[in-house]
Amino acid sequence: MKIALAQLNYHIGNFETNTRKMIECLHASKEKGADLVVFAELAICGYPPRDFLESAAFIDLCRQAAGEVATHCQDIACIIGLPIPNEEAGGKDLFNAAWFIENGQVSAVVRKALLPTYDVFDEYRYFEPARSFGCIEFMGKKIALTICEDLWNINDNPLYVSNPMDELILEQPDLMINIAASPFSYTHDDERIKVLSGNAAKYKLPLFYVNQVGAQTEIIFDGGSLVFDESGALKAEMKYFTEDVQIFELDEIQNVRNKYPAQERAGDIEQIHDALLLGISDYFRKSGFSKAVLGLSGGIDSAVVCALACRALGPENVMAVLMPSKYSTDHSLKDALDLVGAIGCKHEVVPIKEAADAFDSMMKPVFKDMPFNLTEENIQARCRGIVLMAMSNKFGYILLNTSNKSECAVGYGTLYGDMCGALAVIGDVYKTQVFELARHINKEREIIPVNTIVKPPSAELRPDQKDSDSLPDYGILDQVLYQHIELKKSAADIVAQGFDAEVVNKTLRLVNLAEFKRYQTPPILRVSPKAFGMGRRMPIVGKYMS
Amino acid sequence: MKIALAQLNYHIGNFETNTRKMIECLHASKEKGADLVVFAELAICGYPPRDFLESAAFIDLCRQAAGEVATHCQDIACIIGLPIPNEEAGGKDLFNAAWFIENGQVSAVVRKALLPTYDVFDEYRYFEPARSFGCIEFMGKKIALTICEDLWNINDNPLYVSNPMDELILEQPDLMINIAASPFSYTHDDERIKVLSGNAAKYKLPLFYVNQVGAQTEIIFDGGSLVFDESGALKAEMKYFTEDVQIFELDEIQNVRNKYPAQERAGDIEQIHDALLLGISDYFRKSGFSKAVLGLSGGIDSAVVCALACRALGPENVMAVLMPSKYSTDHSLKDALDLVGAIGCKHEVVPIKEAADAFDSMMKPVFKDMPFNLTEENIQARCRGIVLMAMSNKFGYILLNTSNKSECAVGYGTLYGDMCGALAVIGDVYKTQVFELARHINKEREIIPVNTIVKPPSAELRPDQKDSDSLPDYGILDQVLYQHIELKKSAADIVAQGFDAEVVNKTLRLVNLAEFKRYQTPPILRVSPKAFGMGRRMPIVGKYMS
Repeated sequence: MKIALAQLNYHIGNFETNTRKMIECLHASKEKGADLVVFAELAICGYPPRDFLESAAFIDLCRQAAGEVATHCQDIACIIGLPIPNEEAGGKDLFNAAWFIENGQVSAVVRKALLPTYDVFDEYRYFEPARSFGCIEFMGKKIALTICEDLWNINDNPLYVSNPMDELILEQPDLMINIAASPFSYTHDDERIKVLSGNAAKYKLPLFYVNQVGAQTEIIFDGGSLVFDESGALKAEMKYFTEDVQIFELDEIQNVRNKYPAQERAGDIEQIHDALLLGISDYFRKSGFSKAVLGLSGGIDSAVVCALACRALGPENVMAVLMPSKYSTDHSLKDALDLVGAIGCKHEVVPIKEAADAFDSMMKPVFKDMPFNLTEENIQARCRGIVLMAMSNKFGYILLNTSNKSECAVGYGTLYGDMCGALAVIGDVYKTQVFELARHINKEREIIPVNTIVKPPSAELRPDQKDSDSLPDYGILDQVLYQHIELKKSAADIVAQGFDAEVVNKTLRLVNLAEFKRYQTPPILRVSPKAFGMGRRMPIVGKYMS
Repeated sequence: MKIALAQLNYHIGNFETNTRKMIECLHASKEKGADLVVFAELAICGYPPRDFLESAAFIDLCRQAAGEVATHCQDIACIIGLPIPNEEAGGKDLFNAAWFIENGQVSAVVRKALLPTYDVFDEYRYFEPARSFGCIEFMGKKIALTICEDLWNINDNPLYVSNPMDELILEQPDLMINIAASPFSYTHDDERIKVLSGNAAKYKLPLFYVNQVGAQTEIIFDGGSLVFDESGALKAEMKYFTEDVQIFELDEIQNVRNKYPAQERAGDIEQIHDALLLGISDYFRKSGFSKAVLGLSGGIDSAVVCALACRALGPENVMAVLMPSKYSTDHSLKDALDLVGAIGCKHEVVPIKEAADAFDSMMKPVFKDMPFNLTEENIQARCRGIVLMAMSNKFGYILLNTSNKSECAVGYGTLYGDMCGALAVIGDVYKTQVFELARHINKEREIIPVNTIVKPPSAELRPDQKDSDSLPDYGILDQVLYQHIELKKSAADIVAQGFDAEVVNKTLRLVNLAEFKRYQTPPILRVSPKAFGMGRRMPIVGKYMS
């Protein structure tokens, strides 16, 4: 049996594109001799469709689109992930399901039992868990087909009362297939291989695993579909961050051990780099836009975002706007211009003094002689926001936000100012990781000026300002933030690890106080196991401080 | 047995305040002869604590705080809602639970089985369902104690495999107690009485129901705790939108039918009015702020928000900023000043021409001779945003957003302009409802100028602009939006009801296109069964259009 694993980039709700891709893949795979094409979890509509699933019309369109794909299944079978109504409940509720299609007809239906409802996942919001399971017979083999989490049971989640594979194994299947929509984080790929390898070995069956690839706003699917033999040995690892279709002969997987050489895994920063490129390009392509605008300050955050945008969209599609204020240093403008020169994107220089002065003058009758403070700093940041949004409105550029995760965590940013944007490119990348990204971007040649990398970070909103005036050193700050945000440690836990109590308490206090700002942050490309946004849901008016 | 129903206003994570309130209520109730005090679902920490529940330290604090309350239970018993770890699962997972406390000790623990995971609810994200149930013996009576949704089973949700009350009834209890955190919507109070009355009659038991009261950012609890006799007749209806503690004698509920006269229910608009006042005042009080700022345009939305803010916070704590542009009409400024005069709040006039001209001049080298368009309209709206945020930053005012639900739905608003604010007061109130609210506010005397109510709505961002230039009449628009947003109807469904196909398709297209804007909207006070925000989760980059 020849099995094609179709790792495709779907677009949520774009049935025309999704079905076209699947139909083309079916025909191409048939030509190459495949007997079965395996598409991913909820392939028909993309993942996650979120509250689209609450529209009866949407569920109908999913069924119609999958039906259209089915008509192309002549002399080739396929597996398609789709949501289906629970007919026993009068169609009121849904299963996260898969159709097995042969000869243009649905010959079997599989339903998901273990519904992830944590971090970015909300499956109990939409689906009910399957309660019965059965293998699928195809070409004389028994296939144990499961959907994503159903073969991801090491979490030992007490919500999961049944283990589908423990029931399926009683039917003595010949192979396992798992269809998934498993999002990228820089810690996830190693874990995925470990879990799936463990399950192949546990059930003593070869395993074919298909993941989605592509970005859906903040969530990035990395692909990396996998094949294991019955000992749990990794036999194939498909491409990361790009579409890939590969065909495998079942007999070869079962009988030829270790035919595939072990691949060198990419490092975390390289993976983050590639994930962000995909995140940017898919956001634009799927929204129907091609051009980006961003503010370029001469600092490292905007330099890295500019470089990433140029790689993702082409430098000809990126407009960098330099907006010096009276507190900007000469070297900032020079560093920004050096980057523009090295990278070849478009640029404009729009000094903001005139607008900042106008606000000073307008507010004078109200503010009278009150001293310069954060208010005037924020006015400058917000003038920049207006300029960037004006560029966006006038020319149809999409504004990229350049805030990093460290700033976003402690609220070191101005709402409606530097926190503007349609997409926060590095909002899940700590400042110390931004420096690593810059070095990675410069690996082959100097794109980001060395001065941008080595100078002390500053918002340049008042004379001689440095980030370190009001924040702990990023080396310390980022470690404290990681303990609290990713690992959910309390202040006491973190202090017990040897961090300074005052720094820890101040940092956690800032994180909590900034919740109201993060509520209005643009969507953030998720690359870590715990990003701000839909995967982290905090009360705004809550008093708890650690 | 004398049962005190304690309908209190908790603050999420503020253990000091929450326990103090509960302890005071215990002592006061004991003095009045109560045998048992019933606090609400998750009373100890407030509802919804959201991802605070993922912190082990937070769960510890809940237990400690409830333990502190328990020490005050001498010669009086109480029921406290709190999250508890599942000890069988090694404490890794949680139950939404209640302690029954007698003589300072926990004498029984009840766990919730039916976990709402829809709209604003995420309980499967945090909790696992209870799987065993038992009545509580107290003063010779058997109490069937359940938590919120466990007595709300008419939804017939297939996720809910067990019905706790069907098991508890086998033990022949003498009464039912239900502790809840059931948020307000203007359709919900009638449904609540119907469901609970139905369950009292079904199980032939008197029912004591305690709800939370108070606002937790966007979610507003309306109180309205209830008592029913064993025939399902309503015997007591506690206050709405305010704290209330009442003591009931069980024997009187069981034996004296219809002692309590039926109350006149408040109309929808009156309820929305009261809910918004509570939403505003709790947001400020629980955040530790007292003063609000808002932009007052002379139009109806900002007039209504200004009036609500003055009622909630006192006119001396409200600053209205009038920001005329060159397109503002004279009557707008006059209408705004009339309102300020009628209501007695503070005001400032800050014309925005100077800043708008500065941006025109700054952008001129880039925009050259490109014609005035939406860009310049947005610049004006954003200049106003900067002025308001400057007032907020300089004086510590909290900015109230004045967008209505109709605008928010179709994206008729400027991101970082009129969409600024910490709290969207009427973001869940359709424009046609805003007019009704204005009339309700004017019931006793004219506060909102009649001209503000009768003139055609306009953003006044270009000469002679009217909302009706680019939007359908609000009477039609709001009906189409209600069908789509609240009732989840597709375009075809709505057209089949007789609405114009072009209007419907245009409206639904605008709703979908505005998803990226709504992602960055301030939190919206929820008063309808489907508000924008945490209860409506849509893909941003999704193509599906109805």
